[in-house]
Amino acid sequence: MHKIEQHWNQQVAGSIAAVSSSLYVGKAGPMVHTSACIASILGQGGSRKYKLTCTWLRYFKNDRDRRDLVTCGAGAGMAAAFRAPVGGVLFALECVSSWWRSALLWRAFFTTAVVAVVLRVLINICRSGKCGLFGKGGLIMFDVTSEDVPYHLVDLTLVVILGVIGGIFGSLYNFLLDKVLRFYTLIHQKGHVYKFLLAASVSIFTSCCLFGLPWLASCKPCPAGLAEACPSIGRSGNFKKFQCAPGHYNDLASLFFNTNDDAIRNLYSLNTDTVFQKSSVFLFLVTTYFLSIISYGLALPSGLFVPVILSGATLGRLTGMLMGSHATLNNGLFAVIGSASLLSGTMRMTVSVCVIMLELTNNLLLLPLLMLVSLISKTVADAFTANIYDLIVKLKGLPYLESHAEPYMRQLTVGDVVGGPLQVFNSVEKVGNIVHVLKATGHHGFPVVDEPPISDSPVLLGLILRSHLLVLLKKKQFVHTRAISSIDTTKEFSADDFAKRGSGKNELIDAIELTAEEMNMYVDLHQFTNTSPYTVVETMSLAKALILVREVGLRHLLVIPKSTSVRNASHLNSLCLCLFLWDAYRWHIDKA
Amino acid sequence: MHKIEQHWNQQVAGSIAAVSSSLYVGKAGPMVHTSACIASILGQGGSRKYKLTCTWLRYFKNDRDRRDLVTCGAGAGMAAAFRAPVGGVLFALECVSSWWRSALLWRAFFTTAVVAVVLRVLINICRSGKCGLFGKGGLIMFDVTSEDVPYHLVDLTLVVILGVIGGIFGSLYNFLLDKVLRFYTLIHQKGHVYKFLLAASVSIFTSCCLFGLPWLASCKPCPAGLAEACPSIGRSGNFKKFQCAPGHYNDLASLFFNTNDDAIRNLYSLNTDTVFQKSSVFLFLVTTYFLSIISYGLALPSGLFVPVILSGATLGRLTGMLMGSHATLNNGLFAVIGSASLLSGTMRMTVSVCVIMLELTNNLLLLPLLMLVSLISKTVADAFTANIYDLIVKLKGLPYLESHAEPYMRQLTVGDVVGGPLQVFNSVEKVGNIVHVLKATGHHGFPVVDEPPISDSPVLLGLILRSHLLVLLKKKQFVHTRAISSIDTTKEFSADDFAKRGSGKNELIDAIELTAEEMNMYVDLHQFTNTSPYTVVETMSLAKALILVREVGLRHLLVIPKSTSVRNASHLNSLCLCLFLWDAYRWHIDKA
Repeated sequence: MHKIEQHWNQQVAGSIAAVSSSLYVGKAGPMVHTSACIASILGQGGSRKYKLTCTWLRYFKNDRDRRDLVTCGAGAGMAAAFRAPVGGVLFALECVSSWWRSALLWRAFFTTAVVAVVLRVLINICRSGKCGLFGKGGLIMFDVTSEDVPYHLVDLTLVVILGVIGGIFGSLYNFLLDKVLRFYTLIHQKGHVYKFLLAASVSIFTSCCLFGLPWLASCKPCPAGLAEACPSIGRSGNFKKFQCAPGHYNDLASLFFNTNDDAIRNLYSLNTDTVFQKSSVFLFLVTTYFLSIISYGLALPSGLFVPVILSGATLGRLTGMLMGSHATLNNGLFAVIGSASLLSGTMRMTVSVCVIMLELTNNLLLLPLLMLVSLISKTVADAFTANIYDLIVKLKGLPYLESHAEPYMRQLTVGDVVGGPLQVFNSVEKVGNIVHVLKATGHHGFPVVDEPPISDSPVLLGLILRSHLLVLLKKKQFVHTRAISSIDTTKEFSADDFAKRGSGKNELIDAIELTAEEMNMYVDLHQFTNTSPYTVVETMSLAKALILVREVGLRHLLVIPKSTSVRNASHLNSLCLCLFLWDAYRWHIDKA
Repeated sequence: MHKIEQHWNQQVAGSIAAVSSSLYVGKAGPMVHTSACIASILGQGGSRKYKLTCTWLRYFKNDRDRRDLVTCGAGAGMAAAFRAPVGGVLFALECVSSWWRSALLWRAFFTTAVVAVVLRVLINICRSGKCGLFGKGGLIMFDVTSEDVPYHLVDLTLVVILGVIGGIFGSLYNFLLDKVLRFYTLIHQKGHVYKFLLAASVSIFTSCCLFGLPWLASCKPCPAGLAEACPSIGRSGNFKKFQCAPGHYNDLASLFFNTNDDAIRNLYSLNTDTVFQKSSVFLFLVTTYFLSIISYGLALPSGLFVPVILSGATLGRLTGMLMGSHATLNNGLFAVIGSASLLSGTMRMTVSVCVIMLELTNNLLLLPLLMLVSLISKTVADAFTANIYDLIVKLKGLPYLESHAEPYMRQLTVGDVVGGPLQVFNSVEKVGNIVHVLKATGHHGFPVVDEPPISDSPVLLGLILRSHLLVLLKKKQFVHTRAISSIDTTKEFSADDFAKRGSGKNELIDAIELTAEEMNMYVDLHQFTNTSPYTVVETMSLAKALILVREVGLRHLLVIPKSTSVRNASHLNSLCLCLFLWDAYRWHIDKA
């Protein structure tokens, strides 16, 4: 629990620092991460350390509710980052959750609805400008509303081409990012100093680019009849003077010397087809594309969304400019489509990308084009590299169970992959054995078997969890003989005793002191065993077992033989399954 | 297959007739239905009768692909009905599909994307007005774009109240509709004449209302400075003269003498707060609410969406008018919120309702309010009656398996509900037995058991489907002795032989002629048995078995005992499970 809280604080602080130093990292990822952290803290019954707890929170102290909370949290983070409530829900559905149920849909929706209302209220309060940039842009961040979006066949073909380009660039992005991350991990292993030096050098390099490159761009005369100041000096303003003569501005500087959001807003804005030169946009594209790649893996909380949107917008804008008069579509709209294209090219999301772009730009008429481009881009990119999240998960070595079965799994049966040595408990087991097994293995669940004299032949009773065994050992409700105890020991336990602990707060077997006498006593597991675990017969195809595990969201799966004895019942490598769901979330949230 | 095609034709014709006669029925339902029919015809490998088939379609001839196709079809229908592509996807996700996987998400999305592009192209072609009303309104049906949607705390409270009202009216709607439908089914059983008479009388009653009620409304002087003609006579125009003096119009007539779409457009339109009188809107609300209820169950293809949207809009508008100057929100926006509220009150969808309303009205700023209202309304309505689809399914007696387990199921084990008498086949079974069992039972799947001499003790081999048995009997690849046949009979069969047949085209056991000699021969089932069926042990809790069936989308579940013999292996009332998924779709699509 404390780990999570510290994590959360680091995220908040770090992300503010990272974004405010003009590194090309997104703020979406950290926001998703922080809100997921908050959700998971709630799922642990609040934080007793910080006095942030109340009694009813304990009802969430189980796996499923915590999973749901984390999913909703991730959705809420996305909704807050882009002010896109529906997009947040779809993001949680398409990308975060490895297991979905209809109740979760409207819970996530409720969460994001609250986010939307709160955002709206805060924006209204901040209209006066007290809160700096926050109120700016209202609920829609990059408003590109246009009366009508006329496009003809040539535009459609252009959009298709843009989709293909986005797909190629997207897969290339994933490929390069993978390589860079592998390189960074090598450096990070060297120690904290190296981490710091790496981050510092990249940050310095970024600044050099920002201040150096604009010299390559030629000055342009200010367009006539502008509302805003041109040329302008300082943070705000979209026509930066930089080194130019009075009455002129440097278009590349105007892109570099803004926040990412403002740069995106510039690129999206309509009727500015003449503002930027091809050369500057091209330079900006190359810079953002590569800077965002090298800035990502650094030892600071960073997201991918905003940089990708920015590069995509530049890409789209460039394509539009290169087509020139052939295209009837506005360059700003090309930028929007480009963002969608690159987003689906890297993250391989379709529905959520379209909805997020829709909610960002508030241009419903663009939707058909957005859908088209994101589908094409995803399809093209899938041909080259995997989804960026999958790449990162593989890199981090997290045991994430893919939803689809690999072809070779069809050839194997569950019996082939069952791992040993298997530990089985008797329904009335000697305390010493339990302690020994718990110390010897890392398994999280053990099959329990009724054996003579309790039953005439060995029969599978069910499954008991390591955590529950630890609770039993701690309470020391032991009996002296190997027989079903007549006295009901359950009343000694409350439901809370078996509630899911906060992460990092699990009982440890070594922490439990037991006398030699107690070690020789017995504990009756009948009342504490899950008597209806999910089972498969040993000849079940591995692929189908995988589907079972994924669809039902299991952590343990008992493999029972076709013959009588259940001695060789066992888990399908329990540990991996124990982790996959939870890690799927943690990883997703890290890298969203 | 033919059934489906006829069905489809009826739908198209009937729905056009029903909507054009000013009955208060929606066109969304039939559109969803027709597109789902087309999808399911594709899933059957096209129609050989109408020469609408090609060879690659045969790859869809299996349960899962057909299910997916139907889901996508339903989504496409919704997308086409409301020109709401994303809404269509979410509708398919939230409401149609009883089983979901991520691949389905972007397939449905692709379908609706195509719909959106085609719609867009057709609309552009129809801009000239050649296609009557179709081109009107463009991609957004009821555009209520407004620069800014200012609302204060009082409006929020109003929205909450509107949500509660919508919830109450929605549940009442479901209750009344249920009663009316029960009454109608009684009449429909009497024969086709009664069906016709019922439809006719309701239609006549509707007309009487439309022409009679406007007399109750007083005339209003035309507002000054109008773009359109006032008062107008004839189909078009929003200020109908009816019986009024020149320069005056009848506002109730203006609502009644329009298509439903135009009426909705009127109610949504901004800055028309003075156009309608409270009394007229109230009258209109009562009429539409009850007319839509009595028009639904008639023997004609009808949908619920449009009438509910209309009544909801009236409800919202009335609420806004009653608040008068207290509310800062525009009456038109109140109407939009009212529609969302009543929609979620009846159909209990949240995300899809919001997105559909968003895509209908193209007012993103309204989203927070829409989310709020639909959540409240759903919650309130759930307290009173069930989801309208569930009511209709129960009424039709379709075997639909709920996704959530009933409380009593936790007390039962699978062993308790296993139905008998169980039919088990030997791995090398006598033809006569198979024929007899197939004739005697209606089961769709049978466990297959290896027995001495083939194995030393009876062992479960797997599951074989009735349809596959029928194929085997038809091919007559029989052997003379009860022994595993050395010759490989599989090469006699092609994958197509076992492909899923079109609905209503299943083989019948009675259609297969077998001589007395053949009846005494044996058939080797080894190569045709599904050797890895999903199984549960007999002590498994029924609730958990239900979850397994629902999450994995099973049709048969083998219950295996803990003791040796597998004689009493059996299905969990196989028939019901065989049907539930498919019917879930059919029903949903019927009544969407």
